[in-house]
Formats: sequence, C-alpha cells, structure tokens
Amino acid sequence: MERTEVHDALSDFRRATVVGAGVIGISWTGLFLARGLTVTVTDPRPDVEDAVRAGLDELRPALDALGLPTEGLTDHLRFEADLATAVADADVVQENGPERVEVKRELWATIERAAPDHALFATSTSGIPASEIATALRRPERLVVGHPFNPPHLVPLVEIVPGERTAEETVERARAFYTALGKKPQVLRKEIPGFVANRLQSALFRECVHLVAEGVVTEAELDEIVTSSIGLRWAVAGPFRTFHLGGGPGGLPHFLSHLGSRMEHGWRGLGTPSFDEPTLARLTEQAREAFGARGVAELAAERDRAQIALMRALAEARANEARADA
Amino acid sequence: MERTEVHDALSDFRRATVVGAGVIGISWTGLFLARGLTVTVTDPRPDVEDAVRAGLDELRPALDALGLPTEGLTDHLRFEADLATAVADADVVQENGPERVEVKRELWATIERAAPDHALFATSTSGIPASEIATALRRPERLVVGHPFNPPHLVPLVEIVPGERTAEETVERARAFYTALGKKPQVLRKEIPGFVANRLQSALFRECVHLVAEGVVTEAELDEIVTSSIGLRWAVAGPFRTFHLGGGPGGLPHFLSHLGSRMEHGWRGLGTPSFDEPTLARLTEQAREAFGARGVAELAAERDRAQIALMRALAEARANEARADA
Repeated sequence: MERTEVHDALSDFRRATVVGAGVIGISWTGLFLARGLTVTVTDPRPDVEDAVRAGLDELRPALDALGLPTEGLTDHLRFEADLATAVADADVVQENGPERVEVKRELWATIERAAPDHALFATSTSGIPASEIATALRRPERLVVGHPFNPPHLVPLVEIVPGERTAEETVERARAFYTALGKKPQVLRKEIPGFVANRLQSALFRECVHLVAEGVVTEAELDEIVTSSIGLRWAVAGPFRTFHLGGGPGGLPHFLSHLGSRMEHGWRGLGTPSFDEPTLARLTEQAREAFGARGVAELAAERDRAQIALMRALAEARANEARADA
Repeated sequence: MERTEVHDALSDFRRATVVGAGVIGISWTGLFLARGLTVTVTDPRPDVEDAVRAGLDELRPALDALGLPTEGLTDHLRFEADLATAVADADVVQENGPERVEVKRELWATIERAAPDHALFATSTSGIPASEIATALRRPERLVVGHPFNPPHLVPLVEIVPGERTAEETVERARAFYTALGKKPQVLRKEIPGFVANRLQSALFRECVHLVAEGVVTEAELDEIVTSSIGLRWAVAGPFRTFHLGGGPGGLPHFLSHLGSRMEHGWRGLGTPSFDEPTLARLTEQAREAFGARGVAELAAERDRAQIALMRALAEARANEARADA
C-alpha cells in the first residue's frame, strides 16, 4: 500500500461525514478510516457507537486481507448525533439514509445549510435519482449519486449517477474521490431506475426464480451452474467482450448478425415469475436446505475471503499482461 | 496432476470418438487427449486434420496452464472420415454436429448401429432436447445431452440434460465421465429450451442490450460494471447465495419477504429490446471501438490466462477453507 500516494490523491477529502450507519454506512466508514480519512458518523439511533464499532470489528479481517492498514483504525473516528454539527467541517458527505425521497430531501437540505461550500455531496441511494432529491437543494449541482455495490469496502464498483442538474465538476470530483479510495467508479450517461448493476442482477435473478419455480434446478444447483460458468467468465470479461470472443474472428458483429435473431426469439421464452405464495415457500425452503446449516455472518466471511483471493489473482494477471506488453 | 487416479476413474472410457470438429469438438479433443484418452475425430470436411492440429496448438497453452500434461498430446489422436468406422470401438461418443435436429438424428442412428453396446452417447447440443434426437434411436435410453459451456477444455460446467427416455444409468455414467475429466457436471431435472446457463446469460444480455441501446452506458462501460461487481460476486457465490448473504441474519427468506415485491415491481421496468437496424448498428460500432484494436484470438488468449489464474485462486481459497474446517 503506497500510503503517501493515496493520501496525496485524497488530500482534498481529509474529513468525511457518513450519514446513516447501517450496513452500507459502516462499510464506507471502515474504508474511509483505512484510507486515512477522519470520519464523523451521524445517525439518530441511540446505540450507534456500539453498532459501528462492532461492525468495524467484523470487517477488519477483510480490510487486512485487502492490504489496507487497520492499526489504530478507529483513532480518527468520531460520533455526532446532530446532523448539522456533524457535517460542519466535512470535505465529503456520503449519505446512507433510508430509501425514501422525503427523508433524503430533508437530510440534504440540512446538510447543504450546514456543510462547507467546498464539500462533495454524494448519496449511496440504490434507486432514487439525484434529480428527485436535489429539488430540496438551493444548489442542486452539488449532489450526485455515488452508489456502491454492497459491501463498499470490498466490491470495487461505484456507480456515479449525475442528476439533471448535477455539475460536471461534481461528477469529476466524485470520480477522483472514489478512484483515490481504490474503487472503480463508473459514470452513467442517463438516470434510470435501479441504475445498471442492480438492473442486470435483477434481470438474471428473474430467470433464476423462474427456473427454480419450474423445478428445472434447485437453488443450490443453479448457484453451482453460475459459479462454474457465467460467473467465472464475467469476473474476467463482461458480457459484450465474452460474446465478442465467442464469435470467432468476426467477433461480436459476426455473432449478432448470425445468432442475434435466434437470441431475440429465445428472449420471448424467458420466464416471468412472480413471488406468489408457492414460489416464496419453495424459495424459502430451498434456501434453508442449501444455506441453513451455518450462520449468515460465517458464510459471508468465507465468501469474502474467496472474493479477495480472486481479486488479487485478477490484479496479478492484469499486471502480468501489462508487463508482457511493455 | 494425479495421473493414475484420473486414469482409474476414466478406465471405462479409454477410447473416445469426437463427432464434428468445430470449435467445441476440437476443445473436447484437446481435453480428452490431455486426460490420456485415445481419441478418434470424425468430420466430413476435407481439411479436418489440419484444422484439428492447428486448433490443438492454439489451446495447448491453456491445457499447460491448467496443469494438464501436453507432451505427446497428439500421440493418441486418430482421424476417420467414415462415421460408422470411427465409432466402432468407442467407449464414449461426444457429438458436436450442426444444430439441426434432422442432422443429429441421422448421425445418432448411424452411431447406434455401429458403436459397441457399452458406449456412452452424449451430444454437445446447446439447444435440442435429447428427447427429440432420440426418436431416431432403437434404444433412446442411451442418449443424453452433455452440453459444455464454451470452451469445454477450460470452463468447468457441463450441463447433463436427460431426455424423457434417457436411462438413469446413462445419466450416472455421463456424470462419472465428466467428473473424471475434471469438469463440474450438473444434472438438470427437466428439459427446457436453452438449458440453464444459456438462459441466464441470455436474460442478462437482454438487459445489457437495452441499456446500451438506451444510451445509459457503452458496451465497454457496461463490461467494466459487470467485472467490478456482479461478475466478481458470481464467480465466488451464485445469485441465491449472494442474496442470502446480502439479507442480514435472516438471509434469503428475510430478503424475499422484505424486498421481493419491490424486485418484482422492478422486473416490469426491465428492457425488451430487439435487434433492429439502429440497435445492431450501435452494438457493432461500439464493439469495434471497444475491442477492434486487437485480434479476437489474442484477446481470447489473454482472457483465458486471467480465467485460469482466477480458477487457481478459487481452488486454493476453497482448499484453505477445507483445511481450516478440518
């Protein structure tokens, strides 16, 4: 970890305020602290300090495994129940409040009144467009969506989604901030419900539910199919590149012109399930069979260890290719 | 590589006949040879021998990287243009002919007449149910779909899809065969068009096409989003496990009861694109921009190197967990 280099890129963002200390807020807090920021957490719940400290203890092994420094992790952690006070000296505000537009509007109106003029404003919302929240702001150009893929301390993606009135400067500052944190920010060109990653996840999951509801496979079998085929592929190359490489020398254009109409025909046969009672009962029962023998936290920790091993292997493979090209 | 152990498990399948030497057939051939089988390739094309030898040269680096022995790889490779002669002493026949049901029926009728009674019959078809092909057989219980995810020498998944009349014994022999080859076979419980992996891939790709057609992201941006979020996740844990671990202590049942209706609502807003002229033009242009600077074979080789690094890291992570549990 080149601590100095990271600190240089983060020098405009020394003090972060994390608004809302649920799972996402705690994960951001851990990452910000490990990257050397001073973090103020604000949340009205009375047990916020205990919850955050316990949460940080849980994600410490992952931060360690990612190669981030965790000694004295909480030395620069502060708590402040009053929102206005909490953001008064912030360089960046990352908001993780409830997913209700009225609540977010109220939070951001308060934040705007109290925060310094230079502070970057980002909301972790997974579904509410910045345009709708920013109606509560005097300067809507300051707010942008910075939607992490859960959990933010681990998964690289952050979707940056500008609202109609978000300034280009805000977008670029958000991109610089997340990049300096070691994330892989991606700026979307249009606001769309669910943004990109969750829409894709949801599209695939709809067909998963259909196949289990129809009795073609169980949940456990479907998971095995994904991890031994498309999951492996998409960790290395996205869907377009995958089809490009599967199309022979003519690549994706050849693939589309030869197989596009067959694929489009197949789309019509995909499932349109609903979470009715029998489907929910089946999904719930199979989940208990497949995953019930061990606790969620234990399974998640195991998954995260494998995730980090995979990310390291990919980073090394990319570095090898870069060296070979040089 | 425990060569002896592998040979033991493969002792019922010493002689394989590969019918049809396209990309899939050549990949199976390479894997079978590297696993110590004697392989007869049969294909009516006049340049079959050159094509197969050139193809094997291309996939040799991947076989090496997978830790498979490739010295003298083609010592036990034979060619036989006549289909009946080619299968006369086969222990297993893997058919990779054209995806047309009449062609496959004709191939399999010939194979059944000429092959030994004990030979395992598997078709690589990606879409034609075994039930429809097996109408041409006197003993339809012998035929099963063994559909690899391309390329079979690299990607672990093989979907085993029994037809209505496929014998349980055939299914179990196919499972034993692919397992002994080092693959991860998965037996489907029902025949369904496209089987499972391709249906899931197609469901996700439909939304990819929609998002690019709508101008939300480019192909290159979408690929980055996938490889830095859901792709990473699904290489380690399938969609059901991922949602189970994302639902807090209550796991998937809690997730579904709290967010199921919101997700179902979101499904209605997913895209239903078609490959009309403007969409095809955009997809083609962006593919050229994103991938056009380098050849498909070079990009594919690079992808495969990263793929193998990832598979090794995952295998190691799983071995570590197993050791920790022991």
